[in-house]
Amino acid sequence: MSENNRADKHVKLFIPGPTEVRPEVLDAQTNWMIGHRMPECLDLIGRIRPKLGKVFMTEKRVLINASTGTGFMEAAIRNVANKKVLNCVNGAFSARWRDITVACGRDNAVLDAEWGQPILPEAVAERLASGEFDAITVVHNETSTGVTNPIEAIAQAVRQAPNGEEIMILVDSVSSMAGVAIPFDAWDLDVLLTSSQKAFALPAGLAFAAVSDRAMAKAKTVPNRGWYFDFLVLEKYLLKNQTPATTAVSLLYALDKQLDDMMAEGMENRYARHLAMRDRTLEWAESRGLTAFAPEGYRSPTVTCISNDNNYDIPALNAFLREKGMIISNGYGALKGKNFRIAHMGDLQMADMEELFAAIDEFLGQ
Amino acid sequence: MSENNRADKHVKLFIPGPTEVRPEVLDAQTNWMIGHRMPECLDLIGRIRPKLGKVFMTEKRVLINASTGTGFMEAAIRNVANKKVLNCVNGAFSARWRDITVACGRDNAVLDAEWGQPILPEAVAERLASGEFDAITVVHNETSTGVTNPIEAIAQAVRQAPNGEEIMILVDSVSSMAGVAIPFDAWDLDVLLTSSQKAFALPAGLAFAAVSDRAMAKAKTVPNRGWYFDFLVLEKYLLKNQTPATTAVSLLYALDKQLDDMMAEGMENRYARHLAMRDRTLEWAESRGLTAFAPEGYRSPTVTCISNDNNYDIPALNAFLREKGMIISNGYGALKGKNFRIAHMGDLQMADMEELFAAIDEFLGQ
Repeated sequence: MSENNRADKHVKLFIPGPTEVRPEVLDAQTNWMIGHRMPECLDLIGRIRPKLGKVFMTEKRVLINASTGTGFMEAAIRNVANKKVLNCVNGAFSARWRDITVACGRDNAVLDAEWGQPILPEAVAERLASGEFDAITVVHNETSTGVTNPIEAIAQAVRQAPNGEEIMILVDSVSSMAGVAIPFDAWDLDVLLTSSQKAFALPAGLAFAAVSDRAMAKAKTVPNRGWYFDFLVLEKYLLKNQTPATTAVSLLYALDKQLDDMMAEGMENRYARHLAMRDRTLEWAESRGLTAFAPEGYRSPTVTCISNDNNYDIPALNAFLREKGMIISNGYGALKGKNFRIAHMGDLQMADMEELFAAIDEFLGQ
Repeated sequence: MSENNRADKHVKLFIPGPTEVRPEVLDAQTNWMIGHRMPECLDLIGRIRPKLGKVFMTEKRVLINASTGTGFMEAAIRNVANKKVLNCVNGAFSARWRDITVACGRDNAVLDAEWGQPILPEAVAERLASGEFDAITVVHNETSTGVTNPIEAIAQAVRQAPNGEEIMILVDSVSSMAGVAIPFDAWDLDVLLTSSQKAFALPAGLAFAAVSDRAMAKAKTVPNRGWYFDFLVLEKYLLKNQTPATTAVSLLYALDKQLDDMMAEGMENRYARHLAMRDRTLEWAESRGLTAFAPEGYRSPTVTCISNDNNYDIPALNAFLREKGMIISNGYGALKGKNFRIAHMGDLQMADMEELFAAIDEFLGQ
């Protein structure tokens, strides 16, 4: 009985990942182990694939791998970036993509925006005018700042560049996919990747990536892609409802269960729930005389980064919240203390948010 | 209650991975999700590290990552192979390491042995005499053939080569680690990697690798190591009981529980249990007039590959066994039908083996 395995004190996660996982999803991990070449596993992956396609809003392949999203960030670079990469950097995770690009030995240039500000399509267009780039990296939802970049407009700007049809648009949606609509096909993206432990509300350890036909064709021309993250190898097995190496079966059980529950909720309802929780978080912040770190129009539907203008003692606040079985996030890196982050993603409900705000209000003596 | 999540028919796995996972280990996955930067997770990794060190018989670092063992095979190549790699190939998984080496753009040469035969130290010494290699790959336990390569003697041969002290000895122990003693420090190996889903008897999705000081120093000199599998990045975080990217928390819960149980059994007892099950499997095969595919002295303690000289119908046998809630493996690849494989690894007990042999005997009408 797994209740015994949840003997540890429960701390509800209002941090931007790993996110809260519901008991019934945790329990779904405990089905009997099966071999990854057994029909049971092929059936499992076969059930998962069309549902993943719906979440990614694509008719194309959605690759699955035993890694976290960072692994697929590296995969995207190794598979389709061959000439020069434009890394759009406006936070910690877009900076990670720059680091990965360099670590993979690719030539690159950086389009910077201040932390807390979005990447603007005009700036992208300007940088791509030279025609020297064959790939662009951008993070849809910067977990570190609560900024959502305007991917649709950025993608349009890319396609209008001199060599726009050749440029691979690589998008990290680690902390947004499944919390907001990101239509892979309609926006004409090339790689759209995410992790299991954010708005999917699953344990960490799985990564998913929608990959365009354009990207698959490009991968065939790029040498030294490696093996573990080779899109061609991954697709070859995916078409057989398999994975090249052993897959994380227990996490796939949880994924299958969670996708069923997401479909039952309805993706539109799920997106609306995220927006409502975001709006309620902004409203609460305003009631405290605080504002979102991100400018209006770019405020994340999954995590709100709040400027700590009242100089609340965030560690003390979190210690207080912990006693009540909750936790939020401090600002990221250099932003520690200057702002704090409240995640409203995954399977959290409005009632959870109200419980959190009541507890924060209690700490603040109101 | 996780019993409900094991409603699927139980098929006991006598295949060489994924292996049978005990219900209490499956249930350990269901503890509440925690953040990977929270003290709870640092404590978890802090508890795991010394126990992993005991299994790897090392005082050095044992890196942990959210991937399968194949990921760390690629990591080993990317981190420490820079000049030319000697790939020792005597089965499917040592061939995979050759493929990975090539896919990573490394120069290489192959030392072949026939499938079913071991890699011999004399052959290794001969190939290394040229002094042109800076790394050698070898699989300790070839899952595809049931052959255990003599790693200790091979490592000695490597060190006696002209540039022996510079050669990185990269060993895949995916299907043997935790089932047989592989003393990383005493044998002076450089990278010794494994997966969670074999003799560790855990769900798949985690990889572990002991890495020598020599290999860490070498990594510093190798460009384009990437990020997700960069040994330097992984160690930097490991020293803080963390991982660079989000880690697979639920699998770490299971690992922690299983390591406790392994320590309680005693590693020497665990190794003896594997050997006893191996010997019983050989005895059963002999009673049927069959022999092991591997020559004496090289027969795996975790999986026995049996020459199918009596032309048993393996798919029919497996269909029969499935009805009784068991499954074994056919021969691998080209060996399908020519032999079959019975795994005796992880947490399987002698009683499980007797149950299996009784069922096979029943199928064979005896």
